[in-house]
Amino acid sequence: MNPRPHVVVVGAGAFGTALATVVAETGESRVTLLARRDETVLDITTHHRNDVALPGIVLSAALEATTDRDILRHAPIVLFAMPSQAQREAARELAPHLMDGATVIVCAKGMEKASGRLLTDVLEEELPRQNIAVLSGPGFAADIARGLPTAMVIAAQTLEQAADLARALSGPTFRLYPSADRIGVQLGGALKNVLAIACGVVEGAGLGDSARAALISRGLAEMSRFVAAHGGDASTVSGLSGLGDLVLTGTSHQSRNLRFGIALGKQGNAHGWPGELVEGAFAAGVASKVAAELGVDMPITDAVAAIVDGKLDLTTAISALMTRPITREF
Amino acid sequence: MNPRPHVVVVGAGAFGTALATVVAETGESRVTLLARRDETVLDITTHHRNDVALPGIVLSAALEATTDRDILRHAPIVLFAMPSQAQREAARELAPHLMDGATVIVCAKGMEKASGRLLTDVLEEELPRQNIAVLSGPGFAADIARGLPTAMVIAAQTLEQAADLARALSGPTFRLYPSADRIGVQLGGALKNVLAIACGVVEGAGLGDSARAALISRGLAEMSRFVAAHGGDASTVSGLSGLGDLVLTGTSHQSRNLRFGIALGKQGNAHGWPGELVEGAFAAGVASKVAAELGVDMPITDAVAAIVDGKLDLTTAISALMTRPITREF
Repeated sequence: MNPRPHVVVVGAGAFGTALATVVAETGESRVTLLARRDETVLDITTHHRNDVALPGIVLSAALEATTDRDILRHAPIVLFAMPSQAQREAARELAPHLMDGATVIVCAKGMEKASGRLLTDVLEEELPRQNIAVLSGPGFAADIARGLPTAMVIAAQTLEQAADLARALSGPTFRLYPSADRIGVQLGGALKNVLAIACGVVEGAGLGDSARAALISRGLAEMSRFVAAHGGDASTVSGLSGLGDLVLTGTSHQSRNLRFGIALGKQGNAHGWPGELVEGAFAAGVASKVAAELGVDMPITDAVAAIVDGKLDLTTAISALMTRPITREF
Repeated sequence: MNPRPHVVVVGAGAFGTALATVVAETGESRVTLLARRDETVLDITTHHRNDVALPGIVLSAALEATTDRDILRHAPIVLFAMPSQAQREAARELAPHLMDGATVIVCAKGMEKASGRLLTDVLEEELPRQNIAVLSGPGFAADIARGLPTAMVIAAQTLEQAADLARALSGPTFRLYPSADRIGVQLGGALKNVLAIACGVVEGAGLGDSARAALISRGLAEMSRFVAAHGGDASTVSGLSGLGDLVLTGTSHQSRNLRFGIALGKQGNAHGWPGELVEGAFAAGVASKVAAELGVDMPITDAVAAIVDGKLDLTTAISALMTRPITREF
């Protein structure tokens, strides 16, 4: 008989709690949520709720919770569900507790701000004795936790490893597709925030649904070029991470990046918005700079970066995008 | 000096009128709208309006209009903007009036219902002395006519022909990308209606934004497989026709296919809806049958076809889609 693997989810925020409950509910694994606060553990173990992170949602009765890091000692699968900028520090703190050869899965989107590096690279640096994978794609925490159908991607060093993880974590409502392209999956998750800002600009400026659809299509083409220039697979961003996530972020008003873009589109500039707090505003600047160094053509990303910096007004930006020389679609 | 080419748009409905006015506005071509009714011609030539098709929108002052088919005699570029099921008959009627070697552009989406054939194949059969191209992608007539930014695809037999057409028809607000893949561009336009129904089902059944994003991603993967099996380029559907159009149709409530899907999702079946009037309901049946013959895996299309036919209930369909064996993403 195959013993159930022990999965530990680190971070009891909305996304971590949602992942923990949906995986626990499959019954395929024993799942423990590693939280910081005793109150959270109490709320989960006695009431099957985490009202701070996911108010009103009843969690799986099979979900365990603890604040004791020793729980990591024998866990072959560990999900890092803390925010992206907290992943390096968490890795440093938890390194002594992790099992050798465990798989640690990045469950956050975006790059490290200080270095502009991918989070899997950050964790590989901090955790040389573990395998680093990444989970990304279109999934709102509340949808996942409520058991609404969701599909995301899990990328590992090999497709075989990714497929093993997908089998261990997927269930009837939560479906993970395996990938061997950690670069493409992560860049898709980071760049979609830039394009979500652009979608917001189009919406805020009243440019219409057709313009937004064009933007998403052309944005996907430039994401592909960027991923290919980084050694990833250009087609990855046409999948759940990248396109799928862009559709979710760019059309659902739950997204902060979209709302920032709408404000930009309405008032023509970023005044009064703390741009540094919007993931996509930061990513636009980094991606635009890196694209220039690599010689990758990214007109939409460049325009978002310039608008955010106040170096380009909206009318000029849109007119420039529409009058570029016409080349092939891809 | 290059004389301005004469472009004739046949069909003074909303889409034909929108294309005619936006191309006329560029000033690069002389543009005439060939209408059926004298009232339409009068409205356009005296008031620069077509209030039946596009109420409240002021058209280009440069746009000409006529009911006289002789206008086709010297037109090197002719846009067929009548509905998809009227394209064959229009070709038969207009064949004697068309210039030898003219390019006739299909500006309608979907397949011929009687034969299940692509519209470019239909026109090639009827118009052996003309070159057949196709214009598709995400563009609502009202958005195009109002001069909101729009990007679509034009596909011809060669990329060079397509690029020439793109240059002749594009302007500051209307941007055409050239393609040599007439098959992929047309299948993208037809299949997106099937997936729009599926998006509607997800919305009507209250399955959440994450589920819709997953559906669009996985739907794109199956469109790619279908296009490749037809000898088209699998990547075409990741562009404006296919993905872009799907994003527009699947997220904007202006679409009849989406609204049909929402009704299906709410009541669990298609009772009370004249399914044959919904483009995607027809396309689902055809595509599902052809996919089975070709051995192409199209679970979402199959599910839509079966739900429309009343052969599958919604709960079973969703559960079947979520519990299929997990393979690679592409």
